[in-house]
Order: sequence, then C-alpha cells, then structure tokens
Amino acid sequence: MNSELLKSEHLLALLKELSSQVDTELDRVLPRADEPPRPIHEAMRYSLFSGGKRLRPALVLMGCEACEGERTAALPAACAFEMIHTYSLVHDDLPAMDNDDFRRGRSTCHKAFDEAIAILAGDALLTHAFELLAKGLPASCGASLIAEIASAAGTAGMIGGQVADVTSERLPSDAELVEFIHRRKTAALIRQAVRTGAIIAGAPPDRVGAITEYGAKIGLAFQIVDDILDVEGTTQQLGKTAGKDAAQGKQTWPAAFGLEASHRKAAELIAEAKHALQPLGTSGEMLGLLADYIAARKS
Amino acid sequence: MNSELLKSEHLLALLKELSSQVDTELDRVLPRADEPPRPIHEAMRYSLFSGGKRLRPALVLMGCEACEGERTAALPAACAFEMIHTYSLVHDDLPAMDNDDFRRGRSTCHKAFDEAIAILAGDALLTHAFELLAKGLPASCGASLIAEIASAAGTAGMIGGQVADVTSERLPSDAELVEFIHRRKTAALIRQAVRTGAIIAGAPPDRVGAITEYGAKIGLAFQIVDDILDVEGTTQQLGKTAGKDAAQGKQTWPAAFGLEASHRKAAELIAEAKHALQPLGTSGEMLGLLADYIAARKS
Repeated sequence: MNSELLKSEHLLALLKELSSQVDTELDRVLPRADEPPRPIHEAMRYSLFSGGKRLRPALVLMGCEACEGERTAALPAACAFEMIHTYSLVHDDLPAMDNDDFRRGRSTCHKAFDEAIAILAGDALLTHAFELLAKGLPASCGASLIAEIASAAGTAGMIGGQVADVTSERLPSDAELVEFIHRRKTAALIRQAVRTGAIIAGAPPDRVGAITEYGAKIGLAFQIVDDILDVEGTTQQLGKTAGKDAAQGKQTWPAAFGLEASHRKAAELIAEAKHALQPLGTSGEMLGLLADYIAARKS
Repeated sequence: MNSELLKSEHLLALLKELSSQVDTELDRVLPRADEPPRPIHEAMRYSLFSGGKRLRPALVLMGCEACEGERTAALPAACAFEMIHTYSLVHDDLPAMDNDDFRRGRSTCHKAFDEAIAILAGDALLTHAFELLAKGLPASCGASLIAEIASAAGTAGMIGGQVADVTSERLPSDAELVEFIHRRKTAALIRQAVRTGAIIAGAPPDRVGAITEYGAKIGLAFQIVDDILDVEGTTQQLGKTAGKDAAQGKQTWPAAFGLEASHRKAAELIAEAKHALQPLGTSGEMLGLLADYIAARKS
C-alpha cells in the first residue's frame, strides 16, 4: 500500500472515530425521546441521527487538534454545529421551501412527523445549539465566539444564502449571484466550524487566520461539488433526489459556469485551501487530506 | 385624581418610554431593510415593528431597575427577548401551525411575504437574538445567562409549550395539560425576561428569586387573561380573530375550568405576584402596577 493510500485510510479512521464521539455526546446532551412533549424530542433525534457525515463537527474537532487543543474541549461546539446544520436541513426540506420528501435515504422530518413538528424541531435544534454553546465553550472565548457563530448562521451567512437561494429560483443563471449564495448558504458555516475549533484551542491570530481561509475555500468547494453531484450523481448514490437543482431552476455553479469549469474551480479551491494550511506544518496534515476527501466525495 | 390613578398614569408613561427606547435600539441593531438579501430584512422589520406592546422588553428593563441596575445595561437583552417573542409569533401563525392571517390588526408575515420568507425570518430573529445577547450582556453574566434564556425558549420552555399546544387540539379539556402548556408556552419566557433584568443588575440571589417568582405568576396570569379575552373580547379589540381558541379546539383555562374560575385564578396569581415582590420594598412598585395592568388589559 503506498503512503498516500495509507494517509487516506488514516483520515477515514479519524472521521469514523470523531463521528462516533460526536454521536455519543449528542445522545448525552439531547433530551430523551420519551421526555414530554414527546413528538418534538423524537423529531429532533430522528433528524440528528439519520446517518449524516458529521463533517461540520469533524471540522470543529480537527481545527482544534490542528492547533494543539484538546479534542474534548471542542466537543460541545462540535455538537452545536451539527444541530445548527440539521435545523437548516429540516427547514429547507419543508414544502414551502425546497419541498423534499427524502434526505439521506429516508423520509424528511415533515414527512415522518408533520409540518408543525418539523418547524418546531428546527427551532428547537437551533435553540438547543446555543444552549450547548453557552454551557460548553471555554470561559475565555464564550460570548464573543457565540456572537461569531450566530453571525455565520444568520442573515449575513447561512440564512442570507438560503433566502437568496429560494428567491432566485427560475431566474437566469447569474455568476455573481451563485457565488453570493454559495459563500453564505454553505461556506459560512463550514468556515466558522473549523475557525471555532482553532479559537477553542487558543491558537494565535495567524493560525486562526490560516485555518479560517482554509475553511472558506473548502466550504465553497463543498457546495460546488454538491452542485456537480446533483448533475452527475444518481438518486441512489446521493440518498436524495438527483437532478433537482435543474428541475427547480436553482442557481448552481454548473448552470452559471458549465460542468468543466465547475470541476476546475473545485480543484483550484482545494489546492488553495491546502496552501493556506502551510503555516501549520505537519499539524495541518489531516485537514489537508480532508480537503481532498471533500473534492473526491460521491455523495 | 386619586393616588392609585396617578400611579397607573406613571406606569403607562414608563411603558411608553421603555417601548420607545426599545424601538430605537431594535432599529439600530437590525440590518437595514435594503441590505441584501432584502426580503428577509424587510420581513424581520415588518414583524418586529408591528405595534407590539413590548411587554417582555419592559420586563427585562423594569426587572433591572427594580434591582438598582442601569437600564442601558439591559437594553440589548430587552431587544433579544422581543426578537425571540416575535420569532415565535411568526412561526405560530404559519399555515401548518395556527394558520392566522392577522396579527396586531394587519397581515401576518407569511401573508405579507410568503411562507418561505416567514420561516426564514423567524429563524433569523431567533439567531440574531442570540448574537445580540452574546454581544450585549455584561461579561459577568454572559454565557450562563444565555444558557438560561435558551432553556426558557427551548423544549423545556416555550417550544415545549407550543408543541403540547398544537398536538392537543381537539382533545378533551384537561386541567393538567392546560397548565403544562401555559407554564411553558407563555410563562417561561415572561419569567425569564424579568429574571434576566435582575441578573443583569447583579442582584443578590434572594432578590433574583423574588423577581423570578413574580415573573412566573404574571406569566401564567397573562396567558389565562389571553384565553379569557379570546372568549369575551371582539376581533376589533384584540387585533386578531376572537373566538379562535374554541373554533380550533385549543386547551384553554376557560375550557378546562370555566370563565368564572379563570377570572378568579388570574386575580389570585396577580395577588401572589405582588406579594412575591415584598422583599424589594418600594423598588418593586412599578412591577406591582404592571401586574395589575396585565390583569386589566383588554387586548
């Protein structure tokens, strides 16, 4: 086995380990499914434990470890990012938004429960994420980091991207608009996840800056790859309906720039992300492998 | 003019002053309506500036002043409570929830905009509330107070009450259930508002305790009066459709206990709330008047 292959085996083993730690912690901090009122706690757990890749929590934990921080110190924040990500999916899937019946190969929250519970489960995941952050962040960075995370999740970040996404369906493809959407809808939270890990580790500003740049690059690459997979992938591979972007007239990178240019842009961003990690030396190795993993993913 | 009348004039003047200060601060901290993506910022402002009574922010500010705190120190938290309250109304009004077309005498958010924007505007108000808390709370109480507020707004509090409310429509009236709902849906956030003001003021535990008890009592009384008004009031008085609770088969105090017992319970709670304020002496006078005001309100 060559050394590249060995390293990527190492990354996969690490991702599996992190994902399992995050799942255990999520299970511990969430209200039990049978705690009243029952349907909301069942719905929160249904959506959180649905086979997600736990990319955002992995980024928090790996960002922390790349800056010599203790993994356990970043575990509450890692869980909070997964809750914020999951709430956004639950609300995006609603009939009034993207109207998706399947996610990760099974019924979306509003199909498994009903629309009212899905709206409230999303609200609750967001609320509990902030409770977890407030309880679990180190005192040294607590409030200012919560403000940063809220900003990345709000109308300057994720929600703003989602608004631009839903209000620009069926408009002519617009290169500037697609970048506006992707930077906010997806990249803002991914960037903030890995940055949060570095801040929890108490990293100096230049390291936090390097990791933040890395996060912004892989975040944008992640969404471009998502757009490409929606064109090139199958529903079975993706665990969600393929070809939906075109059917819904979404603003996507392939629609604005073509498939070939999209592949090229994703590859460029991954190279730039890895370059940004240079100041970290060997501590940044796993994050570099993760960038390649994001580019190569098939679902 | 007798002295009781003078005092209630004084309370009304204070509420007007507080409401105006809160409006000015909300206008300052919210993104401008024309900031892209525009519809979300328009919708957030539409729902926030719709003639609300600003009761929760007033409670934060009055709780702070009753404990000799500076009003300005509590202003960001006051705005955050109004954002949390408003997000809950925007989501409650959605077709999948209470399906209300009117609120405070004009179209609800999803009627004025659309459902997708209303869902996202609610999400954004909640997210920005936490950003404001993280930026604006005194460092001495920041993170632990954010955790408390999130808990009061989450499934142990407001959201939990809302879930029990929507899932128990058309069930037989149940006294225990109606108390479960009202304590969470309405009282939890009102209690937390006035408690937050006391904590920001740096009040000692016994004062915080007294004010918290006061908040829990007026919070429950507020919802019972709401239920009574839905039976006895007119749509014009209320600025929302009267008689909706019965039409939707809601769990209400009058349905479970009768109108007369509801009036009696509200009066008892108000008396108990005022009694709880005794340790505060004259500093608690305005909060006492506010309790009477809540009992006497007609809209």
